[in-house]
Amino acid sequence: MMVLMDAAATPEQIEAVMERIRSFRMQALRLPGDDHVAIGVASAIPADVRPVLYDALSILPGVSRVVHISRPYKLASREFHRVDTVVDIRGVRIGDRECVIMAGPCSVESREQIVETALAVRAAGARILRGGAYKPRTSPYAFQGLGVEGLRLLQEAGQRAGLLTVTEVMAPEDVPVVAEHADILQIGARNMQNFPLLIAAGRSGHPTLLKRGPSASLDEFLLAAEYLLHHGTANVILCERGVHPLDRAYTRNTLDLSAVPVLKHVSHLPVIVDPSHGVGVARYVPAMARAAIAAGADGLMVEVHPDPERALSDGAQSLTPKQFSTLMMELRRVAEAVGRSIAPAP
Amino acid sequence: MMVLMDAAATPEQIEAVMERIRSFRMQALRLPGDDHVAIGVASAIPADVRPVLYDALSILPGVSRVVHISRPYKLASREFHRVDTVVDIRGVRIGDRECVIMAGPCSVESREQIVETALAVRAAGARILRGGAYKPRTSPYAFQGLGVEGLRLLQEAGQRAGLLTVTEVMAPEDVPVVAEHADILQIGARNMQNFPLLIAAGRSGHPTLLKRGPSASLDEFLLAAEYLLHHGTANVILCERGVHPLDRAYTRNTLDLSAVPVLKHVSHLPVIVDPSHGVGVARYVPAMARAAIAAGADGLMVEVHPDPERALSDGAQSLTPKQFSTLMMELRRVAEAVGRSIAPAP
Amino acid sequence: MMVLMDAAATPEQIEAVMERIRSFRMQALRLPGDDHVAIGVASAIPADVRPVLYDALSILPGVSRVVHISRPYKLASREFHRVDTVVDIRGVRIGDRECVIMAGPCSVESREQIVETALAVRAAGARILRGGAYKPRTSPYAFQGLGVEGLRLLQEAGQRAGLLTVTEVMAPEDVPVVAEHADILQIGARNMQNFPLLIAAGRSGHPTLLKRGPSASLDEFLLAAEYLLHHGTANVILCERGVHPLDRAYTRNTLDLSAVPVLKHVSHLPVIVDPSHGVGVARYVPAMARAAIAAGADGLMVEVHPDPERALSDGAQSLTPKQFSTLMMELRRVAEAVGRSIAPAP
Amino acid sequence: MMVLMDAAATPEQIEAVMERIRSFRMQALRLPGDDHVAIGVASAIPADVRPVLYDALSILPGVSRVVHISRPYKLASREFHRVDTVVDIRGVRIGDRECVIMAGPCSVESREQIVETALAVRAAGARILRGGAYKPRTSPYAFQGLGVEGLRLLQEAGQRAGLLTVTEVMAPEDVPVVAEHADILQIGARNMQNFPLLIAAGRSGHPTLLKRGPSASLDEFLLAAEYLLHHGTANVILCERGVHPLDRAYTRNTLDLSAVPVLKHVSHLPVIVDPSHGVGVARYVPAMARAAIAAGADGLMVEVHPDPERALSDGAQSLTPKQFSTLMMELRRVAEAVGRSIAPAP
Repeated sequence: MMVLMDAAATPEQIEAVMERIRSFRMQALRLPGDDHVAIGVASAIPADVRPVLYDALSILPGVSRVVHISRPYKLASREFHRVDTVVDIRGVRIGDRECVIMAGPCSVESREQIVETALAVRAAGARILRGGAYKPRTSPYAFQGLGVEGLRLLQEAGQRAGLLTVTEVMAPEDVPVVAEHADILQIGARNMQNFPLLIAAGRSGHPTLLKRGPSASLDEFLLAAEYLLHHGTANVILCERGVHPLDRAYTRNTLDLSAVPVLKHVSHLPVIVDPSHGVGVARYVPAMARAAIAAGADGLMVEVHPDPERALSDGAQSLTPKQFSTLMMELRRVAEAVGRSIAPAP
Repeated sequence: MMVLMDAAATPEQIEAVMERIRSFRMQALRLPGDDHVAIGVASAIPADVRPVLYDALSILPGVSRVVHISRPYKLASREFHRVDTVVDIRGVRIGDRECVIMAGPCSVESREQIVETALAVRAAGARILRGGAYKPRTSPYAFQGLGVEGLRLLQEAGQRAGLLTVTEVMAPEDVPVVAEHADILQIGARNMQNFPLLIAAGRSGHPTLLKRGPSASLDEFLLAAEYLLHHGTANVILCERGVHPLDRAYTRNTLDLSAVPVLKHVSHLPVIVDPSHGVGVARYVPAMARAAIAAGADGLMVEVHPDPERALSDGAQSLTPKQFSTLMMELRRVAEAVGRSIAPAP
Repeated sequence: MMVLMDAAATPEQIEAVMERIRSFRMQALRLPGDDHVAIGVASAIPADVRPVLYDALSILPGVSRVVHISRPYKLASREFHRVDTVVDIRGVRIGDRECVIMAGPCSVESREQIVETALAVRAAGARILRGGAYKPRTSPYAFQGLGVEGLRLLQEAGQRAGLLTVTEVMAPEDVPVVAEHADILQIGARNMQNFPLLIAAGRSGHPTLLKRGPSASLDEFLLAAEYLLHHGTANVILCERGVHPLDRAYTRNTLDLSAVPVLKHVSHLPVIVDPSHGVGVARYVPAMARAAIAAGADGLMVEVHPDPERALSDGAQSLTPKQFSTLMMELRRVAEAVGRSIAPAP
Repeated sequence: MMVLMDAAATPEQIEAVMERIRSFRMQALRLPGDDHVAIGVASAIPADVRPVLYDALSILPGVSRVVHISRPYKLASREFHRVDTVVDIRGVRIGDRECVIMAGPCSVESREQIVETALAVRAAGARILRGGAYKPRTSPYAFQGLGVEGLRLLQEAGQRAGLLTVTEVMAPEDVPVVAEHADILQIGARNMQNFPLLIAAGRSGHPTLLKRGPSASLDEFLLAAEYLLHHGTANVILCERGVHPLDRAYTRNTLDLSAVPVLKHVSHLPVIVDPSHGVGVARYVPAMARAAIAAGADGLMVEVHPDPERALSDGAQSLTPKQFSTLMMELRRVAEAVGRSIAPAP
């Protein structure tokens, strides 16, 4: 941590800052030379002290700014965990050479719908079935999901098709029932900083897919992952799904694909991309899916619905099984071009 | 709802859109004349059908865009509730002529700290004591609040000082205990779209202060209020607290004060402003507090700590009791200048 | 400047960074203690070397980040110019105790329109007449302004009403003709980083009002002011006019009023606010105008049109003369409440 | 255009809106049925009337919102120009099956530097040499480019290497000299709405590469292209180069790759991507370059410098010739995977 003083800071103000640092039993080092005096904290700062020290120094007279010089996350950082984490669930390995494709409808709507979709995406080469039972909806009047019944249908469809399953959990008290029915818990974008939920998911130890919040910086995203890791889940998958857009005239969000190489560089966790929410318009999903693989993503989450026109949620961004199957063939070529692979149609 | 067709849409595509609208038992009206054909839905659209219809039409061939022509919220809208809502809690009336000031520390840290603050802000004219017992913290290593013990201390301090109390609730299962100890539940910015929490708070019927999310549009904000109203809470207070900033070099957020006149215009709910989180730097809080009152806010929420340098959270944005007392005198003059008032120091 | 090394940086990489700093003839100081090594540049860095050094260090192996520890602007900074700059043009003093109100139509449309407006805003207490002769329009098909004829009409109207004038200049070659006809040059938001224009305006020495770009950080804004100051104009007025909004459902921009106290704190230049472009909807302009004065603005720029329904540009955000006159009375009360004043109606 | 009335609008207000539309000699059509009355403009609206009508209706009593139902650009729209535009300059065809790579340094610094770079990027398969002679710099103290001398060196290097050239023009009066020396004019991101410059470039008829502004919506971007097309340049190339980021901790901008498929869908103009400015960090450029090609871009603009550590500008985002050569091999594989090609190394 580094404290930058105002150019007009007095010697007394500078000394007061150094004294305050020492009161935390840390060493203060004065850096001379530029127009401004800067004062460094020349000791390791425990993670729980970091925010308190930051605020305590920020408020002192003569201080212009306080700057962090280390990243706030530890367990999620590659600096302390050099080797890539591979999340291995019954042989499906996320974060390894193969790009893993998750696909399925936005919401589980009926047995017929989810089973039909599961068989179709399996036939195209997907490894994991997605489908929402608890749906976060902007409007209280929109379809809110089938709840536990949806979980059961998802599980059944996954078993029939030979797919793992992933589904969103929205409340801490639902973590056990969701973990019982699905292979991977999903924390949605709007819950990225729902800390009781992160703690409950972390404590479950269940593999968890964490979506980036729509206005979350990458540090905030990795700190949310840090909650999961700190509370007990080693198997965390990061998912970029689009950030708040400049306008919504053409797409629902702005898919930030640069997050893929950045996260792979600074963290050891696997990174996947959700192009369906990322753009929100089915027509643009294939281009962004290809781009995500070319950027180095470890997998994708794609919305597929047997009849998008009649979907109860997110029909506008869902591919048909046929479109998905065509996309998978394209993705295999792109994956190979960048030294990766995608599972063949069985 | 209005469907805009591509300029090159065929008569068959246009007819298919009209047919799809009719399949929802609604009337379709074709609007001729411009380069493009537009098709209006000339029937009232039930709120639960609205998102499904939107998606169903968006996806049809030849459709360029679907545009909503009515706002998605009803209970929060002034259109269906012309009179201002005044939230009246034991005689403190939020949304009436008097601007109501809520003040207190970010976190409840100890009996001494919260009681001292309560007495100080009461002496300056505040009506409501704020203080966090459950703290949403970006980092898992930061102070997370005293929990139930913090609720008890807050309640005690409020009673001793003769102040109402407001405090954040973060998980659905905590709603009862928080409602038991505090006069107003607070839903924090990061939980604005935590729907299970909104539903639990709504069902409690307890007065609730809802903070705008950092990247929430006003429609999303009012739809979150709609959840509360729809599930049973009539006493909802809206709070602007700053949106995601262009950069964080000088302030933590960008306080969007235009939200005040807009929300007062489109909704009947009272609107307050939190300048402390809005800028995140104590030095700039008084200017923004004055501006909020001048813009027509029904009240403020201000962070005050007896010793900001030693606060366990958000010290950098907290005023001292003395700074707060000076600010209150300034605010009274501004309130009078715009035809409002602020309670005198007792 | 401070270089933060990766946790895994080798001693050789650390030494290479220090060596690179020394190759610029500056002193390198190593800061030990935390997980990471940080290396400070312990010498004054000339302004022209700053960006080159930044890039040169950023690219070295083992470097995680380079952080500036002083602000990039000098002439615009209060650190090197402690006293408030007052722009004094024939006795109208911008940046002094009196808040100076600039008002007039978006575009000069005809002699009758601009003279009528000038007399009306003068009667309400405005000091400066605004009106566009060269109009930056998003669409090539929109009205582009009257050009030199508009400048003449503006000058004539200002003289008849006893008002100073301000108008936008869009191209470097137009600076002389605009400076000849108007008291203050305006650099529009979309030209904030039009550097040839900034240089031409700076060299003219003419008083210049600089609008903040819609996605400009405050550092970028002050660096644009630095161009003006560096090239020869001492009389620079900063103008906040709204930044890119989260959505445009209710307002055209998000007026960032926190820019007012921040700019007043870090710079000595006067700061005014344009609430008309800031929200883009006439109904919300008065509230934001009052808020701007309460926040400490040194003045306002307000759009007024004798017949907004028939304006050739920006009618939707223009006040009528009568609405403006009412607003001026409100503003006087707010100004007094915060220890300022506004000129009385003559 | 569609006018949405307030739910409480009176019959007189509705009639006034219809009357106002008719005063523009257009047909007004009332759309009944929902909670709100909507009024459509059922006539073709000339492009120059569109903004005036919009404002005139927005301001009427009882009006809630006015909504455009056609896009504001015409010449740039695929609706009126179904066939892809291919910009053909001496046989280099941008917008055709081959993806065209532009590469070179941020700034032309010396004959040696630009010739060495030109030969290197040519050897790797680039078709067009980039290099700045006029440099838009945020700080007035940064290197501002060599001006005309830089143009001459760029031209010479292009000729020696057998490459076309592209370089930025910043002021209207420089258009002729830049057009004389370079094959393609570049309008930089910060000048996207510098309308005098757009008009001057348009009138020159010279091929022009237009960069998207950092907070420009796609409609604003296409309207800027419309200026070029309307004033006489048929050969316009669109370039996505990153939009304002959520934060700058890891990248300088957020590269919006969804702009590629959207622009290709709604416009007939070729679309290229600048991954170097898009992320601003050399380490992440290759991933984003691959992603851009996979997303369907018609080409790339990549910064290459023989000695990035010693570059006078943007060293941190420049690739070495060797890194660029490796990237080109990767890009060829990705291009083939999506049915495109990239020129082989000669």
